[in-house]
Amino acid sequence: MKNEFMTAALYEAEKAAECGEVPVGAVVVKNGEVIAAAHNTCEVQCNSLRHAEVIVIDRAMSYLKTPRLDGCDLYVTLEPCAMCCGAISHARLSRLYFGAYDKERGCVVSNLHCFDAPSPLFNIEYYCGIMEDECSALLSDFFKRLRSDKFSTFSK
Amino acid sequence: MKNEFMTAALYEAEKAAECGEVPVGAVVVKNGEVIAAAHNTCEVQCNSLRHAEVIVIDRAMSYLKTPRLDGCDLYVTLEPCAMCCGAISHARLSRLYFGAYDKERGCVVSNLHCFDAPSPLFNIEYYCGIMEDECSALLSDFFKRLRSDKFSTFSK
Repeated sequence: MKNEFMTAALYEAEKAAECGEVPVGAVVVKNGEVIAAAHNTCEVQCNSLRHAEVIVIDRAMSYLKTPRLDGCDLYVTLEPCAMCCGAISHARLSRLYFGAYDKERGCVVSNLHCFDAPSPLFNIEYYCGIMEDECSALLSDFFKRLRSDKFSTFSK
Repeated sequence: MKNEFMTAALYEAEKAAECGEVPVGAVVVKNGEVIAAAHNTCEVQCNSLRHAEVIVIDRAMSYLKTPRLDGCDLYVTLEPCAMCCGAISHARLSRLYFGAYDKERGCVVSNLHCFDAPSPLFNIEYYCGIMEDECSALLSDFFKRLRSDKFSTFSK
């Protein structure tokens, strides 16, 4: 089941890469069904806050017509940053599953440990490294391609 | 100057209270001018992510047509939570001024210390307790009224 939903998040991440966005995708799952899916749109919206997690939470809230997503799970291909950890906590999601670790910005286990804070506001189960290889490969391929495109532009 | 801009943020917070929203207001300032203003809209939008800071950053990015708000300052009447600290960092705001401390959710100095993390991603100057009394009073009056309204409903 975990892999099925992470595969759906990966599909979203692939869509992001096709649009030139950093390939991060996310889905919200309730009662074993995907109720919302999204990917990063920072480039196209010229807005550095348009992370996959924030967009998918917005969509899940609209779909369920509630500001609280108790009983829902979030699957995301990259470890969430501080903004997204905060959003996950405000949304009252029950469980978080992420794929690749983000050594630079990740705030679940890599930098800050948002969900290990003593505050009950951050009371969420989290599971790390789900389909990590596939999620990491998508990101490293994207950045490799980006660098080689830049290099070929400079060498023209 | 600091007080002039915090007064503008307080005016936004008052508008929130009038709509039944938790009274938090924010403005973004560039070159001595307010370029965006917003208040919480969590209740009216049925969305727990609609904090004043996120909305005002969105508006400033739209206004300036850029995802990076270098050289801009954010004034907000309440200490930002983790989500909003993350958003402030992604937006590359230069300075943060906040009014009241938030002992429960504040992530600048009260709980997590987001902007003291070693990561250069959180490299922002911050100033705490600007017009703290006025900002706190607006919040405590709002919650006092809310409790008394609830009490009068129960006693009917």
